[in-house]
Amino acid sequence: MILPHLSVLNSKRIVLASGSPRRKELLDKLGLKFEIVPSIFEENLDKDDYPNCYDYVRQTSIHKAKEVFARLLKQRSPDAMPHIIIAADTIVEHNSTIFEKPSSKENARSTLMDLSGNTHAVWTAMTILVVSEDGKSVQVEKHVLEKTLVTFGILNEELVHEYVESGEPMDKAGGYGYQGLGFQLVESINGCNFNVIGLPVHSFCKTMVALIEELNWR
Amino acid sequence: MILPHLSVLNSKRIVLASGSPRRKELLDKLGLKFEIVPSIFEENLDKDDYPNCYDYVRQTSIHKAKEVFARLLKQRSPDAMPHIIIAADTIVEHNSTIFEKPSSKENARSTLMDLSGNTHAVWTAMTILVVSEDGKSVQVEKHVLEKTLVTFGILNEELVHEYVESGEPMDKAGGYGYQGLGFQLVESINGCNFNVIGLPVHSFCKTMVALIEELNWR
Repeated sequence: MILPHLSVLNSKRIVLASGSPRRKELLDKLGLKFEIVPSIFEENLDKDDYPNCYDYVRQTSIHKAKEVFARLLKQRSPDAMPHIIIAADTIVEHNSTIFEKPSSKENARSTLMDLSGNTHAVWTAMTILVVSEDGKSVQVEKHVLEKTLVTFGILNEELVHEYVESGEPMDKAGGYGYQGLGFQLVESINGCNFNVIGLPVHSFCKTMVALIEELNWR
Repeated sequence: MILPHLSVLNSKRIVLASGSPRRKELLDKLGLKFEIVPSIFEENLDKDDYPNCYDYVRQTSIHKAKEVFARLLKQRSPDAMPHIIIAADTIVEHNSTIFEKPSSKENARSTLMDLSGNTHAVWTAMTILVVSEDGKSVQVEKHVLEKTLVTFGILNEELVHEYVESGEPMDKAGGYGYQGLGFQLVESINGCNFNVIGLPVHSFCKTMVALIEELNWR
């Protein structure tokens, strides 16, 4: 969807506030040129402060974007500031519980057995900041929030054991990597596929096109 | 799902009867070892002979598998025959019409405008042949048939023009490549994501596990 707008977007300095290799790969595939400045926001918001998991994930993405903006404001001269900062956060939710990275192999095993044969939700929130022309403040702040339902096949203990021993689950929210070996656990999805790996491509593109029109960028 | 069965499967000679780089990539990712012998079946079945598009795609996958089996039977000694031959065919269906590779840029443009803002179906049929121990006949024939619904965003003519000019649509059923630039056209999917790029991973794994049990392979 941003194909006809690439020359406009690539005339801007864009920062991706995420170290995720999959997010980088998806933005690369869109043809965007950008610099990577991973957020160092600690992702330590108290989940109990948020009535819904999507408020939690949205707030985390806002904090990630603003942390990078504030840090660059200190480090860079105004004319080296980015025009656009893009941040994202992804969580897995099942039965009103937010699943994060497993704390242990045992925890990874029990999470995967919880998800077995069931449908869970993957939420990604994105925050897009447009920096003012003088490089000193945020001019526009846009949000994307996307939910995809993921249905697992029925997993048996032998499979879960082998998968956990592969090491892949340990640094993944929900204990599986859809972009890795974990792809064979998934029976079907309902929604944006790319959301599951951390960047809801179609919604992101729509938001960027709306932004270009709103700001009358040419 | 086939993770615990890899050593059994990889003790067999497996042939993938498809030249599709995406199918190769997905089987590689599963950890399977296999040889590629693309089918030269002409894919010229008369659609009018089939009451449903899924009968058509299934028959094409059967012909692809059997063409490779027959060819290898002529070329190889019985002890060099594969144990397993895997073939697949994928089609796009919208409003009871089967979309194949565009015949021209104009045809690609009109197909994409037809799909714009609508939901179409992607069907993949797989045929898995197990060759008898003497290498001379087909012992078991298994089929996988999977449908995934794909919803396009609303495309405008400028976008479709740029996308067609990129060259990507011309060798793709339905005029788009989900694995390429076309990924940004897709708003959501319902079903197996990998089916859209030509190999329904979860169903294939389930079928292979059932086959191992049925044949008591260890």
